[in-house]
Amino acid sequence: MASHLSSGPSTRGWIVPIGGRIESRELLDRFVELCGGRNAAIAIIPTASGESDTGPWYQDKFRALGCTRTKVLPLDRRSDCDDEDWLSLVSEADGVFFTGGNQGRLGTVLGGTPIAELIQRRNREDGLHVAGTSAGAAYLCEHMIAGGAEGPTPHSKMVTLCAGLGLTNRAIIDQHFTQRNRLGRLLSALSYNPFCVGLGVDEDTGAFIAPDDSIEIEGSGAVTVIDPSGVEFSSIDSARAHEPVAILGLAMHILTRGTAFRLDTREAHVTETLAVRR
Amino acid sequence: MASHLSSGPSTRGWIVPIGGRIESRELLDRFVELCGGRNAAIAIIPTASGESDTGPWYQDKFRALGCTRTKVLPLDRRSDCDDEDWLSLVSEADGVFFTGGNQGRLGTVLGGTPIAELIQRRNREDGLHVAGTSAGAAYLCEHMIAGGAEGPTPHSKMVTLCAGLGLTNRAIIDQHFTQRNRLGRLLSALSYNPFCVGLGVDEDTGAFIAPDDSIEIEGSGAVTVIDPSGVEFSSIDSARAHEPVAILGLAMHILTRGTAFRLDTREAHVTETLAVRR
Repeated sequence: MASHLSSGPSTRGWIVPIGGRIESRELLDRFVELCGGRNAAIAIIPTASGESDTGPWYQDKFRALGCTRTKVLPLDRRSDCDDEDWLSLVSEADGVFFTGGNQGRLGTVLGGTPIAELIQRRNREDGLHVAGTSAGAAYLCEHMIAGGAEGPTPHSKMVTLCAGLGLTNRAIIDQHFTQRNRLGRLLSALSYNPFCVGLGVDEDTGAFIAPDDSIEIEGSGAVTVIDPSGVEFSSIDSARAHEPVAILGLAMHILTRGTAFRLDTREAHVTETLAVRR
Repeated sequence: MASHLSSGPSTRGWIVPIGGRIESRELLDRFVELCGGRNAAIAIIPTASGESDTGPWYQDKFRALGCTRTKVLPLDRRSDCDDEDWLSLVSEADGVFFTGGNQGRLGTVLGGTPIAELIQRRNREDGLHVAGTSAGAAYLCEHMIAGGAEGPTPHSKMVTLCAGLGLTNRAIIDQHFTQRNRLGRLLSALSYNPFCVGLGVDEDTGAFIAPDDSIEIEGSGAVTVIDPSGVEFSSIDSARAHEPVAILGLAMHILTRGTAFRLDTREAHVTETLAVRR
C-alpha cells in the first residue's frame, strides 16, 4: 500500500467500488487500513438503501474489524445534504462508505448538494478515501449506469447513463457483474465514447483504484476490465432501437486478486502476490 | 461472395456456424447461394437432434428457398457412418448441414468414422461447404465445447472441451451465446491456449468463415470475437477449482452484419454494407 500512497504527487484518495454481497473480510479490512486503521473516522452513507437498519448493520461490520469511529449519515432528502453536522463529519472523515440499494436514490438525493461536492473535492484534493458497494459502487464515477438490460451482447437503448458522484471520469463501473450478466450494458455504455474504461465488478470483489490510477483487486471474484481505447468502429450511432451494436477493437482483461491494471497507461500486469503463488 | 471464392489458391469450403433458432431468411439463403444456388445438393445430418422429424423440417426450410436437392442422412449409430449410400451422397454433395440438438451425440456417433473423415477432407481439399446450427455449430471445429456453466467471468473447471469435427483449429465456437450467457466458458476454453480465437455466436446469427479465413456476419444478432493472441498472463494453470481465472491482454470485437474479422491477421473491419448504411 505504502508504495502507492507515496508513488506520486497526487493527493487524491482511493476510490473503491465493490460489486455487492461483501463476504471476504479483506474487502472492508483493506479499506479500513487505507483510512488509517482502527482509529479511522468513517462516514457511512446508507441513502441508496432507504432502510433504517442498513447503516447500523455496516457499523457492526466495521466494529468487528476493530473500527469504532464510524458514523451513519441518514441523508434521506436533499435538504439533509447541507446540514452543518453532516458536513462537519465529512470534513473530518478519513473515509466515506456508500451502502447498496438503488443508485438512483444516490443521484437524486445527493446530486449537486454541498455534501456531494465536499466528498468529491476532499477525495480529489485532500486524500479522502471513498468506497461503495453495489449501488454505492455504481455511483462513484462521473458517468453512472442507472439501469439497463441483461445479456452479454451490446444493443442500442440497452443502458441508461447519467451523472454520478464524479470522483473520476476515467472509469464506468458496473456491479454484481457476473451474477447479473451485465457485459452487454457495460459495452453499450462504452460504445458511445471510448474514453472511459469499463470495470465490471463481481459480487464480493473490490477494485481498489489508487491515487496513481492503478487498480488492484481484493475478494473472491473477478473484475472484468474493458478498454475501448483501441476501438476503430462502433455502430451505436446508426443502430436501430434494440439492434445489436458492432464494436471493433476492444481490449479485455479479467483481473483477480494478484493482478492489476493502470487506468492511465491501460496496462494489465501480475503483482507479486500471484507470482509467488505460482 | 465471388471475391472470396476467387481470392486465393485455397480450395477449402466455407465453414458456417449458426447460433441456433434460425429466423432470418438470409442465413440459409446465403448458405444455399454458396453451395451453388437452387440446384445445390445439400446433405442434412440430424444426428444431434435424435428426433426423426428434424431432418424433414430442415428439408422444408431449404425447399422454401427453392432448394429441392436435399437429402437427410439418418446417422444414428456409428455403424451408419460407413454406409456406402451415405458416403456416396456426401461425396457428391455441395454442402453439408448439421442440425441442432446435443453436440455430444455428434462427437460420439460420427467421431473418427469414414463419414466424418470424408466431410473433413472434402471441406479442406474439395470446396465442400459445411454449416451447422446450435449443437451443429459447436461441433464444426477441432476443439469443441461439450458443456459448461453459465456466466460472464471465467472460472477453472467451468468448461469441458473435447475433439470436434476438425474443420479448423483456429476457432472455438460457442452458440446461443447471448441467450445462454456463455462468455465465461468461452474465455475459460481460450485461457488454456491462446492459439484459438473464440467465436460466440448469437441465436439467429451466422459466422460465415470464408476459404481465406475472413469471417462475415449474417442474421439479426452478434458474433463476439475473443482474440487471445496478445494474452500475457492466464492463471488457469494455478487457479483452484471453480475459482475465477485471471486473463490479461484479450482483444474483443462485437461483430454484426456489415462487419468482418480475419482469423489469419486477427483484424476486424467494416464492410461496404454498413459503410453505405451510415
